[in-house]
Parts: sequence; C-alpha cells; structure tokens
Amino acid sequence: MIPVNDNFRFLEKSYLFSEVGRRIREFKRINPEKEIIRMDIGDVTRPLFPCVIESMKEALEDMSEEATFKGYGPEQGYDFLREAITEEDYVKRGINISSDEIFVGDGAKSDLGNLGEIFSKDCRIGLMNPSYPAYYDDNVIDGRIRITESGKRLNLINLECLPENNFIPSLPREHVDIIYLCFPNNPTGAAITRDELKKWVDYALNQGSLIIYDSAYESFVREGDKARSIFEIEEADKVAMEVRSFSKTAGFTGVRCGYTVVPKNLTGKFANNETVSLNSLWLRRQTTKFNGVSYITQKGAFALYSKEGRRCIEENSDYYLRNARLIGATLSEQGFEVSGAVNSPYVWARPKDSDKDSWSLFQELLEKCNISVTPGIGFGKSGAGYIRLTGFNSYENTRRAMEILQSKNPGL
Amino acid sequence: MIPVNDNFRFLEKSYLFSEVGRRIREFKRINPEKEIIRMDIGDVTRPLFPCVIESMKEALEDMSEEATFKGYGPEQGYDFLREAITEEDYVKRGINISSDEIFVGDGAKSDLGNLGEIFSKDCRIGLMNPSYPAYYDDNVIDGRIRITESGKRLNLINLECLPENNFIPSLPREHVDIIYLCFPNNPTGAAITRDELKKWVDYALNQGSLIIYDSAYESFVREGDKARSIFEIEEADKVAMEVRSFSKTAGFTGVRCGYTVVPKNLTGKFANNETVSLNSLWLRRQTTKFNGVSYITQKGAFALYSKEGRRCIEENSDYYLRNARLIGATLSEQGFEVSGAVNSPYVWARPKDSDKDSWSLFQELLEKCNISVTPGIGFGKSGAGYIRLTGFNSYENTRRAMEILQSKNPGL
Repeated sequence: MIPVNDNFRFLEKSYLFSEVGRRIREFKRINPEKEIIRMDIGDVTRPLFPCVIESMKEALEDMSEEATFKGYGPEQGYDFLREAITEEDYVKRGINISSDEIFVGDGAKSDLGNLGEIFSKDCRIGLMNPSYPAYYDDNVIDGRIRITESGKRLNLINLECLPENNFIPSLPREHVDIIYLCFPNNPTGAAITRDELKKWVDYALNQGSLIIYDSAYESFVREGDKARSIFEIEEADKVAMEVRSFSKTAGFTGVRCGYTVVPKNLTGKFANNETVSLNSLWLRRQTTKFNGVSYITQKGAFALYSKEGRRCIEENSDYYLRNARLIGATLSEQGFEVSGAVNSPYVWARPKDSDKDSWSLFQELLEKCNISVTPGIGFGKSGAGYIRLTGFNSYENTRRAMEILQSKNPGL
Repeated sequence: MIPVNDNFRFLEKSYLFSEVGRRIREFKRINPEKEIIRMDIGDVTRPLFPCVIESMKEALEDMSEEATFKGYGPEQGYDFLREAITEEDYVKRGINISSDEIFVGDGAKSDLGNLGEIFSKDCRIGLMNPSYPAYYDDNVIDGRIRITESGKRLNLINLECLPENNFIPSLPREHVDIIYLCFPNNPTGAAITRDELKKWVDYALNQGSLIIYDSAYESFVREGDKARSIFEIEEADKVAMEVRSFSKTAGFTGVRCGYTVVPKNLTGKFANNETVSLNSLWLRRQTTKFNGVSYITQKGAFALYSKEGRRCIEENSDYYLRNARLIGATLSEQGFEVSGAVNSPYVWARPKDSDKDSWSLFQELLEKCNISVTPGIGFGKSGAGYIRLTGFNSYENTRRAMEILQSKNPGL
C-alpha cells in the first residue's frame, strides 16, 4: 500500500465549514418544514454586476471566433488585468507596485494554500487566534506546523486576538518566520490602523520575517485611519506579500478570481544560504503547477476596474455592511458583547452573561431561531464562547433573522 | 531572511515551454519581418464549440439574477457535471465509476501538481522518459525526487520509451510506489493496447503501487484495441487514478477545466500503518486548499456531454489528427523517423541520418523554415535528438508549414 502524507493524520476530520453544513443538513432532515436563515458561511448572495456580465459576454464572443480565440494565457495573468490592478489598487493610492509583482489566481484560498510550497518546512508560523482555519490546516498539511503524537503543536506561535487588545494581537516575543495577518479580520471584524500595522512591518524588518497579508475584505474599510493594504506602510515591500480576492468585493465566490502581490524586493534563502527572489520562486511554482485563470473570468474581473465597476464595489460593500451593522446592533440589544461590523461584513459576538460554548450557541440558535451561525471555536481556541455572523445574506433575510432573534429572545 | 523550499534549487531555471517561448521571442525581436508558424506548444487554435458558448451564456444569465445566482460551489464540482462525466465517459463504456469518485478541477496541470501533496515524501516515482516535464518538476518541488549536490536523482525510476519498445516502457524490475503513465502519450504520441496496459495494472496490484494515469488525449484514440481509460482494465480501480482534461478535447486551454477520478477502492497508509482512503484524503486537500471551478466554466464543460457536444469533440479531434497526419507524412518524406499522429495530435520525430541534438534541430527549423517545434530533450534524456510537433495549429498553417519544409528541404 502506498505511503501517504502523514500530516493529514493530524488534521481535524473535516473542515470547519463542512461540519457546519453537515449539522444544518442534519437539522433540516429532521425538521423539513423549518426554513433556516444562513448567517454562517461567508458566501455572498447578490448577483454579479451588469458591467461584469457584459465584459464576460464579450469574452465569450472572443472565444467563439478563431481570430479572437484565446488558448493558454500567461500563468501570471493577462497584462490587461494586472495593469488595471496595479493602477487602481496601488498606484492611484500612492503605492509603488508594478504589474510583474501581481499574480492573478483562482482565489485567495488557492493562493494561500499553494504559497506554502515555496517555503521551508522549518519555518515557524505565527497565526492570529482566532483566524481563518485554512491558514492552520495548510501549514499542517505542508508539515510546517507539526503535531506530536501527544497533540503538541510545534512551530506554531499563537497571536491572541481578544477583547483586551481590541482583537489586534501583540507582537510575538520570540522569532517567527511567517506571520499571517488578516485585516479587516475574519472572523473578528477588526480593522487595523496604519500605526499599528507599522509595528508589524518594523518587527518583520528587524526579525527578517515575512508577513502574508490577507486583505480579502479591504473594500469594507470605512474609517480613514485603517489600512486597506499593507503596502501603505513604508518598506512593507521588503517584508510582505498581499493576498486579495474579488469574492466578497464583487460576488466572485462562484467565479473564482483573486490575486497575490509578491514584491520583487522580497528575498528568501536556500539551505546553502544562497539568496533567491520570492517573486521568481512563486513564478516558478505557478508556471509548473498552474495554468492561469480563465480568460473569461479575467475579463470579468477587468470590468471591476472601470469607473462603473468601482461604483458597484462601493455600493455592494455598503449593502453588506448595512446588514452587518443591523446584526451587530440587534445582538447588542440582546445582551451580546459585539465587535466587527464597522469596517467588516463580519460580526463577532458572545453572550455577556453566559459561558456557553460555541457549538451550544450554534445549536441553540439553529433550533430556537432557525438561524445558522459559525461557532467561534472553529477559528481557534481564543474563539471559544464566540459566534460569527455574516452580513452576506440579503437585507430582507437579515432583517427577518434579527426580528426572529428579538421576538424569540433566546436568552442565551 | 526567510528559509525557502530548498528543492527549488535543483529545478532547471525555467520550465521547458517558457524557454521555447523565450527563444522564439528573441528570434522575432531580431527578425521582426519573419512570421513564425508555431508547431511547438500544445495549444489549440479552434474556437469553443457553439453549444459550449451557449451554455456559458445561460450560466451568465443565472449569475446576473439574485434568484439564480451561484456563490461558492461544491469543491468537488457540481453534481450536474460530475454525473454527466460518470455517465458519458464511464458508465456508457461499461466502466463502473460513481460520481463521488470524480473531482472537477481547473485543469490537468493543477491536479497533477497538487495530487502529490497527499503522498509521502518517501515514495519512489516511476516516470516515462521522455514525458511531460511537469511530472518531474512537481515531484522535485515536493521533495519526492531528491537531487544530491552532485546531481544524482534519488527515488526516480526512469521508464524508457524508445523506438525499440514502440515507446511503451517495460515494467520496472524494482519496486516503484507511484507510476505516471500517459496514453496517448505526450510527447511520443504512442497509444497503449488494453493488453499492454493490463500488465501495468497487474504490476501495481502485485507491488501495491499507484498509477497516476494521464489520459488528457483520450479523445484522439482511433484504433479499437487502444485504451481510452485505465479503468477499462479490470481491478484498475484498486490501483489507479485518472486525470482528464477538456483542453485538447474541446479547446479549453484558456478556460481551465478538467477532472480527476479517485476511486474509493484506493487506499494508502500512514506512517503508523493505519490505512486511509485516497478519495477522502484528496477531498480533504481540495476542501482545504481549493474552492472549486467557476460555475460558468462547469456549465460550459457540461455542454460537452450533450449529443451535440459529443459530435463536436469527435469532429475537433479529427481536425487536429488530420494536421498531425500531414505533419507525420511530410516529415517521413523528408527523411525523418516518425511516430505518433495515429491516435494522437503529437508527432515525435528525429532525422534518420543525423545525430544533431534537439536544440540544434529547434534552432535550425526556426531559422531556416520559421517553424517552431519543441526540443525532445526537454522531455527527458531519452528524448535526445528528437523534436515534437503538434497538430494544434490550423490546417492552413499546418499545410503552409509543411510546404515550407518541403521546399526548403532543410536537410537536417
């Protein structure tokens, strides 16, 4: 029998969101008449923008004629899209990034998962706790975070995000090689000021660390002192990569497109101490194991950089933010301690006068209110006792869910 | 500075096809008036089928309305597509595969690259030589094939494909854990009979090996005794995965869709000898590091399983086969020893009366005939002295290229 990657043995049996889905299906099987309002998974509900649809239709026309047909595209993404990204997301905001530092991919989850391949197994990993569970799982699969038979986690440094620090972690006291930061944060909804973010860039410069900055939710930033990109901080291009997604911004969860910025100033070292550009390593990985994103998809993403596309993103983000704020306000009234919902579509909450665990809260809300949420413990041990709700459902469903919550007053 | 994956140090600086592209661009820069006819890279030139375009347009309509909008899809692919694949590619051909053994992905290159993650670093790898260079590079990046400082390649067993064995390798004499087989083959164009393929399945059953069967070119099989799927062989579902692509079949090189079959009968073992289903391991990998293929793309692929889709695939494959046969016939006349072009869009050739190396042949054809080919040596040392040409250009261009070849008679 063929030997397999032993690291899989140390993963939880199923991915958090699959388990939530399984429990919801189980509840529906037993209660087929009940309608569940889903406030758990971070999936969007509003359709693609008309300008995106239009651009993809044009791309389909190109693909239907021999003269304009496109076969294999550049693995790094088409110039037209990389140049639009560079101009609109960076240069116009005063950030010096060039288009050969942009890698278009099929979404942040894939890029975050695959990026690990270019790093040594010996890297010490710093993860916000709570955080998006894929960061942890990715590093376990790759063998960087190693779990002993007794369950001890090696090479993992937890960066605690608690109400005491407004969910912005303190700098680690020890050396960390790769730090995953996500702001606006999933799941806590916290955004970071440029001043606070600068401390992380300084730490990384001092320590020779790398920051993988997940800014999938940047379009939800509304407060002027909060960072939308780590490259707003000087010298960040010496220590950080940035992962972006069109999923939440523009409803691309089912279309699959995002990008990763790998500055040419980033260097790593081989075992023999030879230095190497991380941009060239990632390019080598992508040209070997990936073949680019659909031309049609890239044309759709390109439309997001038109004036109309920019307007739609703003309006779309506002819509989901309004939902998040309604959720936040309602939960506050119902006796929850609430954060998020200001620069983020996420609401992070725990009952003020209860020490119920996350899965019990999940189950009670499902059974009493027919509302599904995500148990905070699924994002890490510092998520214990919390639940995450998202503003991604429709306004009508969100309002209905909040009315149910108020009327049933589940007394959690 | 951050420590990187040391295995990258042992890869060639650039991926074969990037190097070919670079040399062509360089030639065009110096000779801007020359028009190159590209017979090198395996990229298709015919547009998407009307039924595919139509289906993708309908998907775009779905995505433009809230009621029919699709967000995150199942990581493994939509049921409608997996069921169509199961029925048309397997059940109707008498093969017992079920839809939960099908994983829809963004193309064979990605799946082949990522599949390695579920296997141990200690697996011994058997590769056809010559073969598609990504198999080798993938396994070097992952650390299964290990290269010593003196250049020795550990854990790699070469399965030589030479004219003496009609480009069908002999069974290895030693134990191999993972064997990559590709039929119809890239680059040699060889197809395998069911009798010959059965020997490999028997070897794997005896040895407890796994076969990763790349059948990206199955739609080009024309001879009745040749296998289109490894699952035509009894008990293959105990030892083989199969990777398929819509790229060459249906012009999806720029659309990105394919699938991998991971039978539930396949098992592996962890370091503690516990057994595990490879289907469940691959599902865990995909749910963690991948988020499925665009709904629009999957609707396009679905159209390939309609009656009209089947007809178009047949016609499309015939078109490219006609080109390949023209190339094969012309090269034969010009004094080349030729294989392929019967059940394959590839032509594998070397001059009969010359021992020029592959890159010299490449350069001479580029300079004298303005035709680009792929140097055989790029596919492995047994490709030395060969060139690969593809039937994927238009018939007009192919005919023109062959006329040039005849008139210039480059006398290689």
